[in-house]
Amino acid sequence: MIYLDNAATSGIKPPAVISAVGTALRKYNANPGRSGYKTAMDTAYKIYDIRTKIKDFFGADTEENVVFTPSCTYALNCVIKGANIGYGHIVVSDIEHNAVMRPVWKLTEEGKAYFTAAKTYPAEPEKTVQSFKNAIKNDTKLVVCTHASNVTGEINPIEKIGEFCYEKGIAFAVDAAQSAGVIKIDMKKMHIDYLCIAAHKGLCAPMGTGILIARKPLADTIIEGGTGTSSLDFTQPQDMPERMESGTVNVPGILGVGAGVEYIKQRGIDNVYNHEMRLAKYLYKNLTENKKIVLYTPFPEEYKFAPVIPFNVLGVPSEKTAQYLADKNIAVRGGLHCAPAAHKKLGTQNTGAVRVSIGSFNTKNDIDYLLNMLKFI
Amino acid sequence: MIYLDNAATSGIKPPAVISAVGTALRKYNANPGRSGYKTAMDTAYKIYDIRTKIKDFFGADTEENVVFTPSCTYALNCVIKGANIGYGHIVVSDIEHNAVMRPVWKLTEEGKAYFTAAKTYPAEPEKTVQSFKNAIKNDTKLVVCTHASNVTGEINPIEKIGEFCYEKGIAFAVDAAQSAGVIKIDMKKMHIDYLCIAAHKGLCAPMGTGILIARKPLADTIIEGGTGTSSLDFTQPQDMPERMESGTVNVPGILGVGAGVEYIKQRGIDNVYNHEMRLAKYLYKNLTENKKIVLYTPFPEEYKFAPVIPFNVLGVPSEKTAQYLADKNIAVRGGLHCAPAAHKKLGTQNTGAVRVSIGSFNTKNDIDYLLNMLKFI
Repeated sequence: MIYLDNAATSGIKPPAVISAVGTALRKYNANPGRSGYKTAMDTAYKIYDIRTKIKDFFGADTEENVVFTPSCTYALNCVIKGANIGYGHIVVSDIEHNAVMRPVWKLTEEGKAYFTAAKTYPAEPEKTVQSFKNAIKNDTKLVVCTHASNVTGEINPIEKIGEFCYEKGIAFAVDAAQSAGVIKIDMKKMHIDYLCIAAHKGLCAPMGTGILIARKPLADTIIEGGTGTSSLDFTQPQDMPERMESGTVNVPGILGVGAGVEYIKQRGIDNVYNHEMRLAKYLYKNLTENKKIVLYTPFPEEYKFAPVIPFNVLGVPSEKTAQYLADKNIAVRGGLHCAPAAHKKLGTQNTGAVRVSIGSFNTKNDIDYLLNMLKFI
Repeated sequence: MIYLDNAATSGIKPPAVISAVGTALRKYNANPGRSGYKTAMDTAYKIYDIRTKIKDFFGADTEENVVFTPSCTYALNCVIKGANIGYGHIVVSDIEHNAVMRPVWKLTEEGKAYFTAAKTYPAEPEKTVQSFKNAIKNDTKLVVCTHASNVTGEINPIEKIGEFCYEKGIAFAVDAAQSAGVIKIDMKKMHIDYLCIAAHKGLCAPMGTGILIARKPLADTIIEGGTGTSSLDFTQPQDMPERMESGTVNVPGILGVGAGVEYIKQRGIDNVYNHEMRLAKYLYKNLTENKKIVLYTPFPEEYKFAPVIPFNVLGVPSEKTAQYLADKNIAVRGGLHCAPAAHKKLGTQNTGAVRVSIGSFNTKNDIDYLLNMLKFI
């Protein structure tokens, strides 16, 4: 199968990731941080090492900031509901995924917050930053912005938005579901307070793994439970990362995340990105030559776009095109990609779009095969 | 290593579980329920089959009731916060884990609920049921009860408590962290509305896997996000299980759960339980002959206890004994086991206790080795 749905999950897990998970299931079957026997200690050390690796890779401050979560969605919920917003204003972008919009919407329905969606301008970072500045109000407590759209691939000017939030003292959270492992992220340099990661995408880790890096405290929690610390107290402890990691962590998944980070480091994140963008540009150029294809985004320039191209075949519903390609053994995703806000902006909220999302394992042959199949549609 | 900490996680994952996870990482790398291409469909079918298996194994009604969670703690939080309690009364047992007590405590601190801890009587089911009946008030909305204590091993009379809740129209949730895969559970017969499972324990699945089976709706959610359904709507959809499964599910973990359920079915749950209880009784008997050992529970009769034995060495803090045994290559857990309520009841809230928890892979040799090492302490 030609897998071009890497924005959903990386289609190939590197051998080192598979092997790390297998090792975990054979050798690290113990609940870390709860006991002093050998396997429990070995598991705890192993996980601590992976926290260090992640801290360094994303420019975080300490291992304690690195929280393992089951998904990026979970990490985003922790931040949106936990970052002490009290009643206050939240700014989001106008292309957020439902992993941001649904929890924000819930807070507004509960009367706990209100929000503004700042307009973004693909490939025009200054205008996007200005738009965020204009959206800020006196009681803005949190800005949540996707780094790269899962629909259009557009990259938001995170560093500039972060700088601005930092100056204003507003907490800044980034949804890096599509960018972590694809585009270099330095939390300190970019003034990111909360980074939310889908480790199973760009970092090629197993599905079921996410990361939250929290450089600021989280005043509230959404899950409480056993942490192996302060057990006599029924109040959820403040110590990080335990505060955010109640219950048994996903040891095999976390070992997979460690191997995934190592894999990207070894290939070089810029090499991976450039490889994927070469294919994205090649695809885009060739799609413009097919008169039946409607494109929705400008030419994908480096560092203005992630390797995601949405399109439609004239007069054909996106799901039908996706199914036609599925029958030709090509995996792409039609529909709304759980991001109706982005589709409304493209004007595709009724038809959806076909999304091609390129991963580190794709080759020019994959793109050629897709292009060929689209000729015959 | 002699692993006797199976109440934390099963110390050996069956080869079929390891193999299922490996297969998932090689062949099922696609986000199920989002697309129509082959791998996505194959993954969706595979997961549906596992929902069927779980539904049948636990006597649930439909596949849609079966929700995959990252942990039993997560499942319990979903129920405690979601089961439409509004402001109302919750009854728990007096031996609940912090996975129950901390979320219940949080609700009370937020002024959303108040609670009563019903006294339980080890091996005296009638008295325990009466205690739950006495704890019920006019505004009791939810009863949460652990099936088997992770500290004392005592089994609560779930079926009788369930019958009573059913008659009164009160929602009934069971924390089956220690019992699922060890003691037969039939949700319909036991009138359980919400069953919360740590699949990585008795079902021998990978860490990072839990299950919530919800036979009644959940009015509120704690996590919202992309579900692949009703994407245009910012409100979390009502359809189950998507309502409770925002974001990408843990496909390799779920395949591991499927293999774990199969493993227990093949061995026969009663065979597994009887095997474990034979060892527990053998251990208990021999511990009574060691004058330095303090035991806290009555003799572990079948179906009144799970294979968990807490003890201390006279005058020695539990953590010190656990460390002594760790140095002899034996894995047990000292301390409070994230269940201070149960320890308060035993009078061990200051010292903790050493917990031996027996799993399906343990043998008489393991117990003999432990007994020998305790002779020399």
